[in-house]
Amino acid sequence: MALDEVDTPALVLDLDALERNLQRMADAVKGSGVRLRPHAKSHKCAEIARAQIAAGAVGVCCQKVSEAEALVAGGVADVLVTNEIVGKQKLARLARLVRQAKVGVLADDAGNVADLDAAARAEGVRIEVLVEIDVGAHRCGIEPGEPALALARRIAASRNLRFAGLHAYHGSAQHVRAPAQRRAAIAAAAEKATLTKTLIERAGIACETVTGAGTGTFMLESASRVYNEIQPGSYVFMDADYNRNVWEEGWPRFEQSLFVLATVMSAPAPDRAVLDAGLKASSVDSGLPQVHERPGVEYAKASDEHGVLKISAGTMAPTLGEKLLLVPGHCDPTVNLYNWFVCVRKRKVEALWPVTARGAVW
Amino acid sequence: MALDEVDTPALVLDLDALERNLQRMADAVKGSGVRLRPHAKSHKCAEIARAQIAAGAVGVCCQKVSEAEALVAGGVADVLVTNEIVGKQKLARLARLVRQAKVGVLADDAGNVADLDAAARAEGVRIEVLVEIDVGAHRCGIEPGEPALALARRIAASRNLRFAGLHAYHGSAQHVRAPAQRRAAIAAAAEKATLTKTLIERAGIACETVTGAGTGTFMLESASRVYNEIQPGSYVFMDADYNRNVWEEGWPRFEQSLFVLATVMSAPAPDRAVLDAGLKASSVDSGLPQVHERPGVEYAKASDEHGVLKISAGTMAPTLGEKLLLVPGHCDPTVNLYNWFVCVRKRKVEALWPVTARGAVW
Repeated sequence: MALDEVDTPALVLDLDALERNLQRMADAVKGSGVRLRPHAKSHKCAEIARAQIAAGAVGVCCQKVSEAEALVAGGVADVLVTNEIVGKQKLARLARLVRQAKVGVLADDAGNVADLDAAARAEGVRIEVLVEIDVGAHRCGIEPGEPALALARRIAASRNLRFAGLHAYHGSAQHVRAPAQRRAAIAAAAEKATLTKTLIERAGIACETVTGAGTGTFMLESASRVYNEIQPGSYVFMDADYNRNVWEEGWPRFEQSLFVLATVMSAPAPDRAVLDAGLKASSVDSGLPQVHERPGVEYAKASDEHGVLKISAGTMAPTLGEKLLLVPGHCDPTVNLYNWFVCVRKRKVEALWPVTARGAVW
Repeated sequence: MALDEVDTPALVLDLDALERNLQRMADAVKGSGVRLRPHAKSHKCAEIARAQIAAGAVGVCCQKVSEAEALVAGGVADVLVTNEIVGKQKLARLARLVRQAKVGVLADDAGNVADLDAAARAEGVRIEVLVEIDVGAHRCGIEPGEPALALARRIAASRNLRFAGLHAYHGSAQHVRAPAQRRAAIAAAAEKATLTKTLIERAGIACETVTGAGTGTFMLESASRVYNEIQPGSYVFMDADYNRNVWEEGWPRFEQSLFVLATVMSAPAPDRAVLDAGLKASSVDSGLPQVHERPGVEYAKASDEHGVLKISAGTMAPTLGEKLLLVPGHCDPTVNLYNWFVCVRKRKVEALWPVTARGAVW
């Protein structure tokens, strides 16, 4: 089936571009001594997670217990939940999952560590726990230094838990546009991670893993000498927001592999056309989608199920029924809107991959 | 089961508030001679559509053929697709659906009218078509007046179509905050609708229905003397954006019935806590969610799976594991993220209603 025959809106994945992205990431980390553990919250797809592992990743990350369950059920054997897990039901499910796969989790609170220990005991398992430290994003995470050491001690002293290291992710640094500012943010994060790791090791506790990084900064964490695991996610797909980052000389370039295919459903004026893809087809939290390879045609406004295109004077206007590719503003929440990736190679449909963990937000 | 036992994030529907909203809308249109055809794109739920019809609605609207299919399969007998439908596959499905239910559709293009006619002929059915006119929103829709008359003539002359009237929806007027400006926008829309209706009737073509309106303006269309059908959707739920509209004296007040239940998963600092509900749990296209009945606690930042709360000095901070209700910024795309409404009455779970047409965007 040709791409043009696919009904719209559809989430389209260019397999050639995806495979080049996987290879470029594998090449980028090769020989660095840094393990790659890509973030599966971007794709929520066991098929892609397995491809990442086949390309050298040690496992994947995800954010939710339900995502971890879906990925493990899809054949992924090693999942780190890069999040705090709170509440009896979720803790019991997390502990149950440890029977089936290698599953790690974060903590930033002593009471939560006690709850994790109890859940592990009830299930008769041992859960791997990393301490999340706040390295500048001011979201979750305990303060680096002494507070983190105290929490590491508690984990190490819990019979049913294993202290596995530090989670030091600087989320807001990923989308800082200028390389110099990204460098400064990650240098500060690495310093906090180093300080905390040193303190913990001096206390006689092994600090096996220091993990963090995303698509915008992973080369910096890789070079830091303190991070030994990185968790970029968006590199498999890219999006309009990441495309606005200024990329550094010598960094691997990733290609746009993810698109929303949309149809022109109305062409009421020479300077305006309307696509059948709005807010429910492409997430706009990081800006509007961009029209792929159609200069002079701009996606100007989204409502629930409509996308209004502005057509510059002198541009050949898209015609009614024409199909266009959109580059989503933000890949992660856009993928979460769909049940399937329509996988294409040279505009021919080759496979349908389920978004295994679509909507798995609990 | 008590609401507090529901795992999070969850989409919560307060049935008492929902029922009061349904009643208030029924009361508002009673005796006006205007038919109520609520928009089901807000809830995508056959259960709610049937409740709206039981409360006096003549049927519902939706935006997509796939939504119409899901609603008809869920027992709704009268659906108006308030959108242009373009492409062979969709047109064939639309025509097929006419065998099972009363289904109408819009057109704003002569070529599309020919395609609709061909699809109806192929299926051996007659499709009801309304002409969409642009009354100020500048999205889809043909120009009012002569161009609309020409299109109505074409529909009326098509053997397998029936001209059913005008669609005159002013989308952008719904969220205009000030009553006077909303009044002006709908007065202008009504004038365009009147002019076009008169032209069509003078040409000897019956113009049965003039439909439009949303939750922000329906009292104005109802009073216009030209609209005889209204299609408000959000009134069943309300949201943070609609709550920012200044409501007019004497208009029915709708209550917030839709919430996202979220858990505090991290409380790392006295002025900050983090919820397990981010972009993938509550759409932020019309602004961030609001924390329900917790003054001093503000939802300040959303990432994929985290919501950062800012806690004012002197406010009792939410504790780890505490569950809070959020008012979504925009109800329609938030509902589309979930598979179920958790329906509660006085904080007890009474039912689970499927979001029948979740993700039905094609």
